[in-house]
Amino acid sequence: MTSAQPSVPAIAASEFRNAMALLGAPVSLITTDGIAGRAGFTASAVCSVTDQPPTLLVCMNRSSQSNSVFHTNRVLCVNLLTPEHQILSARFADKRLSAEARFDGLDWTCLHSNAPALDEALLNVDCEIVDIHAVGSHDIFYCEVRALRQGSGEEGLAYFNRAYHRLGAGSRSP
Amino acid sequence: MTSAQPSVPAIAASEFRNAMALLGAPVSLITTDGIAGRAGFTASAVCSVTDQPPTLLVCMNRSSQSNSVFHTNRVLCVNLLTPEHQILSARFADKRLSAEARFDGLDWTCLHSNAPALDEALLNVDCEIVDIHAVGSHDIFYCEVRALRQGSGEEGLAYFNRAYHRLGAGSRSP
Repeated sequence: MTSAQPSVPAIAASEFRNAMALLGAPVSLITTDGIAGRAGFTASAVCSVTDQPPTLLVCMNRSSQSNSVFHTNRVLCVNLLTPEHQILSARFADKRLSAEARFDGLDWTCLHSNAPALDEALLNVDCEIVDIHAVGSHDIFYCEVRALRQGSGEEGLAYFNRAYHRLGAGSRSP
Repeated sequence: MTSAQPSVPAIAASEFRNAMALLGAPVSLITTDGIAGRAGFTASAVCSVTDQPPTLLVCMNRSSQSNSVFHTNRVLCVNLLTPEHQILSARFADKRLSAEARFDGLDWTCLHSNAPALDEALLNVDCEIVDIHAVGSHDIFYCEVRALRQGSGEEGLAYFNRAYHRLGAGSRSP
């Protein structure tokens, strides 16, 4: 439970998480490389902010081992996943795996920054982290876009109600 | 085009928007009421931030007529839509419609704040705006959750690749 004013009904963290499971979200691998080395994690909290200058935001748990790597490198690439990438989503969310084990066996390219862009992604968004805003347990990285590359896929991977979902022709809502 | 360092390839706003169309997003009505009156708009940039304290963020175009209403009222409700709500999504995005015309004929309830909670929503998240961060053309509202109410629906409405999509049993990815 959070501390709260007596007149404010407090919302338990578990209750909040259960509700947020209904907030469907696209699944991405967030990657970086630079003087602090290579790192990557699975994110479902990525959001477009403004097109002038082209800016998005990424939320990251500050307790993650690789958080300081992103702070030092100051670049990241958002690699939007396709429905075929559930295993990659799980791999980059597995705390037992090192950065190298996560990246192993996949094809990566540098676009503008050193952040690795996954060749088979639906979309790569190569960014410079221009501001970091700490809120509770998380950092919000504000990221200006430096390069874009669209892959050949046409379907997206979403996470909703604690399961993976396919965003594509079959999910079109009439 | 944005101004940029000579060595940085600038990304045109239109190119950025085309890419961001691939970032699937849940569709919500964001509502408020208070001393500045009632207002509401359709949003696809809502993101969970941290569960301690339970916090989400909402991006809003600062050029929207109702932006100042949210600044003054300092409360908002995120009303997550279901696949049956495409018409409501269009209604709350229609700049020709007044606030009253947008809200008309629907059932609303106040949960904790004065922000109207749509009775037929998938989920209502009643919030206090605790911080506002301006980036480019948009405001990011950081919102602490004061009340939650889950509806009877089980499917979510997403926007992906410039079309509505259904998040539910039929879109489950094996």
